[in-house]
Amino acid sequence: MLITEFEELDKRYRANLINSVSGFKSANLIGSINQKREVNLAVFNSVVHIGANPPLLGFVMRPLTVPRHTYDNIKETGYYTINHINKDIYKQAHLTSAKYNKEASEFEQCGLTRQFLSGFKAPFVEESIIKMGIKYVEEHHITANDTKLIIGEIELLVCPDAYIKEDGYVNIEEAGTVAITNLDAYHKTEMLDRLPYAKL
Amino acid sequence: MLITEFEELDKRYRANLINSVSGFKSANLIGSINQKREVNLAVFNSVVHIGANPPLLGFVMRPLTVPRHTYDNIKETGYYTINHINKDIYKQAHLTSAKYNKEASEFEQCGLTRQFLSGFKAPFVEESIIKMGIKYVEEHHITANDTKLIIGEIELLVCPDAYIKEDGYVNIEEAGTVAITNLDAYHKTEMLDRLPYAKL
Repeated sequence: MLITEFEELDKRYRANLINSVSGFKSANLIGSINQKREVNLAVFNSVVHIGANPPLLGFVMRPLTVPRHTYDNIKETGYYTINHINKDIYKQAHLTSAKYNKEASEFEQCGLTRQFLSGFKAPFVEESIIKMGIKYVEEHHITANDTKLIIGEIELLVCPDAYIKEDGYVNIEEAGTVAITNLDAYHKTEMLDRLPYAKL
Repeated sequence: MLITEFEELDKRYRANLINSVSGFKSANLIGSINQKREVNLAVFNSVVHIGANPPLLGFVMRPLTVPRHTYDNIKETGYYTINHINKDIYKQAHLTSAKYNKEASEFEQCGLTRQFLSGFKAPFVEESIIKMGIKYVEEHHITANDTKLIIGEIELLVCPDAYIKEDGYVNIEEAGTVAITNLDAYHKTEMLDRLPYAKL
């Protein structure tokens, strides 16, 4: 099938279609906190590698037409955490996308445990095996649809030694990290190959 | 292990470490062409969903300190293609990251077939099952490390009917699309679950 008239598609159909075709997505929970020490936790499938030196990650924030606690908290404190979603917690992680009243945090309402580590300001997810403390660096407003790219620097990385190989490669598959397609499908993986540096 | 002193790590160790911890990455080949009709093909693991309406995808371009044919071609013509890497072509796709002389294109040197479709200006990969024709929309210069986020609109999507479900979800796993970790590891997937819209 060849599709070109995207504006003529049913809105939900189009959302599923376009959210599927970018390929597999990273599965992360972003933890944040405001000045009143109210914590927030939200699933994000748009975390992307920006660079290794300095260590930078980006993620895409949807338009600020409704309250976005993650964004507000990051702007307020300058810090957040990125926590891998693994096979044991993907159902709880997915629940963070539900609508909440603000009486309790997503941590409690989804059955995940907030964890403060090593003096880092923002909360981690205890059940995540691989997790990072991030310092906000810069943001870019995407004119085409009012989204934002948020960029931060990794200040702290937690990862069990067993998953870090001799050359620095982290086997996130062994750690049970999952991948996402669309907004709702979770996948485990099986490594086909780790290929040598490409030479002809 | 808790790591905080990233600048003290060996350069290659740090590159592997940081490239691993963002989570699973999309696996795509970007096809482009210049005004002289010289084609280019390069593997990218940073394609990210920006929005469904209009249908927008982004990807991260490394610093322009060495020639970047993909970038130059996109700026010259305004069009490019994004082609899913599947289980049957990941080894060829990985080879596009090797250094080439410019006598032949990466298509020929890697054993992939250029395909022109439906009057679209940029070349597709015939062996890709899911592929998109993209029109350049905007770019953002990331100050922290001189990379760029390039954003484009999907003008054309090719995907066999069999993989498009009734609600628009595309089962890219059935289509054999792979995921990447680091810059060199390719993974097939197994769906754990497609979860309903989150409600408490």
